[in-house]
Amino acid sequence: VIVAVLTDFGTRDHYVGTMKAVVLSVCPEARLVDITHDIPPQDIFTGALELAAAAPYFPAGTVFLAVVDPGVGTTRRAIAAEAGGYRFVGPDNGVLSLAFRRAGAGRVVELQEKKFARPVISATFEGRDRFAPAAGWMARGIDLQSMGRTVHDPVLLDLPVAKLTLDQIDGEILLVDRFGNLTSNIDAESVYGLGERVDVASAGHVARLVSTYGDVRQGELCALIGSSGYLEIAVNGGNAAAHLSAGRGTPVVVRRRLGR
Amino acid sequence: VIVAVLTDFGTRDHYVGTMKAVVLSVCPEARLVDITHDIPPQDIFTGALELAAAAPYFPAGTVFLAVVDPGVGTTRRAIAAEAGGYRFVGPDNGVLSLAFRRAGAGRVVELQEKKFARPVISATFEGRDRFAPAAGWMARGIDLQSMGRTVHDPVLLDLPVAKLTLDQIDGEILLVDRFGNLTSNIDAESVYGLGERVDVASAGHVARLVSTYGDVRQGELCALIGSSGYLEIAVNGGNAAAHLSAGRGTPVVVRRRLGR
Amino acid sequence: VIVAVLTDFGTRDHYVGTMKAVVLSVCPEARLVDITHDIPPQDIFTGALELAAAAPYFPAGTVFLAVVDPGVGTTRRAIAAEAGGYRFVGPDNGVLSLAFRRAGAGRVVELQEKKFARPVISATFEGRDRFAPAAGWMARGIDLQSMGRTVHDPVLLDLPVAKLTLDQIDGEILLVDRFGNLTSNIDAESVYGLGERVDVASAGHVARLVSTYGDVRQGELCALIGSSGYLEIAVNGGNAAAHLSAGRGTPVVVRRRLGR
Repeated sequence: VIVAVLTDFGTRDHYVGTMKAVVLSVCPEARLVDITHDIPPQDIFTGALELAAAAPYFPAGTVFLAVVDPGVGTTRRAIAAEAGGYRFVGPDNGVLSLAFRRAGAGRVVELQEKKFARPVISATFEGRDRFAPAAGWMARGIDLQSMGRTVHDPVLLDLPVAKLTLDQIDGEILLVDRFGNLTSNIDAESVYGLGERVDVASAGHVARLVSTYGDVRQGELCALIGSSGYLEIAVNGGNAAAHLSAGRGTPVVVRRRLGR
Repeated sequence: VIVAVLTDFGTRDHYVGTMKAVVLSVCPEARLVDITHDIPPQDIFTGALELAAAAPYFPAGTVFLAVVDPGVGTTRRAIAAEAGGYRFVGPDNGVLSLAFRRAGAGRVVELQEKKFARPVISATFEGRDRFAPAAGWMARGIDLQSMGRTVHDPVLLDLPVAKLTLDQIDGEILLVDRFGNLTSNIDAESVYGLGERVDVASAGHVARLVSTYGDVRQGELCALIGSSGYLEIAVNGGNAAAHLSAGRGTPVVVRRRLGR
Repeated sequence: VIVAVLTDFGTRDHYVGTMKAVVLSVCPEARLVDITHDIPPQDIFTGALELAAAAPYFPAGTVFLAVVDPGVGTTRRAIAAEAGGYRFVGPDNGVLSLAFRRAGAGRVVELQEKKFARPVISATFEGRDRFAPAAGWMARGIDLQSMGRTVHDPVLLDLPVAKLTLDQIDGEILLVDRFGNLTSNIDAESVYGLGERVDVASAGHVARLVSTYGDVRQGELCALIGSSGYLEIAVNGGNAAAHLSAGRGTPVVVRRRLGR
């Protein structure tokens, strides 16, 4: 069984290794796969987006262990969930919610049963003492309902929604990746709905909509449908975030091109 | 069998992958788990602390392969060790010593037997040519005594010890993590021994002793017992190392609070 | 079967995790090993060198999945190859070529067969949609010839060749590692061929040829045969790249020492 792990712990300290040790102590057969550990510290939003981007590509049965947890040690709930053949464990702060909802109808429980946690739970490292053992037990096939009572109101993140009018879509940047590519909240269907000739404007620049980076010259700005199905702004061989001084929240407008 | 790996090699170059390749060439069933590869270059002390923090959470039988090795290529000994159900391999410079001693009584041998190393040993990459194959053989279950003669005087690191008086503990910072949390050498028992009302002072600031980060406001300094059982100084949602301009060696004082 | 992965994706985003998910979806038994994901963005040359340095240490049968791909989404070919018991998959831009040629005679095919790719291939993430599933199928043992037609002219990288004269070798730096060690294109045999007494000069400094870092004082410059069998310039306990302001392309000269 795959246990896919996403955190904001970084890889400089022993924390991720220690969490994996606990998963393997509970379930020696677990196969650990890192999604990323470099979510910006306590950035639930980015964590949720990255998890939701990766999750659908994992095989059915995968357990996702996601710990971006500004509320560690407080009374915020710890949850486990099941949807679309996937299982999830993490804090009830929304970090699981985008992947969970995308996977389909499901159920959520609160992690209350002490036997699925370590005997003493540190107030600063629930990843090790609560979430990792729960993930191990889930990998062993434990039934969700035996882990705690049903949660009917898990925290769900709301993504900003792009606004569509007849000739224009108003959206914004959600994510910046390592290459400086800017992913927006405008989906492919909305863009195609405007017709074949559109302009994409952001941060005072206008980008041509193309199919792939190579359709523009080196160093040129472009817009395209990225690998997650959303409009992305990029610079061929360069860094669009730096080029535009843009980041999360920067407005993006797609306009039907007038004239010829 | 798990082979848990800790180095200062970073992950930018191929070195860690190459070491793992050698482990798997010797023992195809080995399950590799990274503790961290971002120990500051040649910082034996941090390597030893991180290894000792992670090791107790791994299942019995785990082989720890730890390579932080300023003396690579010199005549410093290469050792393998066994203690408390764990096995260790690395240079004899103290990097294994904290985890090894914490695991309990054990034995140490010098890696002398050529058949457990690669045929040619590079003077700059013993991790690949000496330590990785030894870890592979250990994962295959080879007996420690067949690997070399007993070492009676392995290099042992000495951690600075906190000084306890009736009303005060004088310690210092040992580790700074990715979040800027400062871990000291003052253990929980010593703190609790001072009574319920204490102040923690470091770098000219006084921090309240609390149970978890969430007990103080965002951006506020606090002190708490961290996940390794030692007193830690932190800023809720912030970076205590930057806030205090503190790092390894910065003094920390815990005082019994006088008056009400 | 081991699938060893090298990319320039970094580990900050979900990309590497998503690629691994796809490999495991096709071949649940695959054992994933990271070589590195921190190849400088689009730097085919460094990617090829790092892959070639690591590959020979992996067990026979390993599938190497290497994605450094400035031409993603364009018509550059996607290839799979077989040589010396190893298998390779990646873009046809030279990133595989150094490891492939070093492995011995082999064959190369173009990835054309749609059933070994994901149904829809993103123009910006062929790593996920084309290369990862192909690697999964190769790990499952699919025959190379069933994946596409033979390629007779794969892109091969040319490394700069050191020039040998009777008393001198003129080479250059190819790689800088995390420690600032500088690896040149001058191999051990050429150096030894000059005799026992040589000087190594680069960037206005002269370095003594030694056997290992510890043969010089802390902070002193030295030259030695590195772990890949090539002449390396290093500073014991320091950073030679910073010390010499040197990097890829910096000339290195080895001279037979005259006089006594």
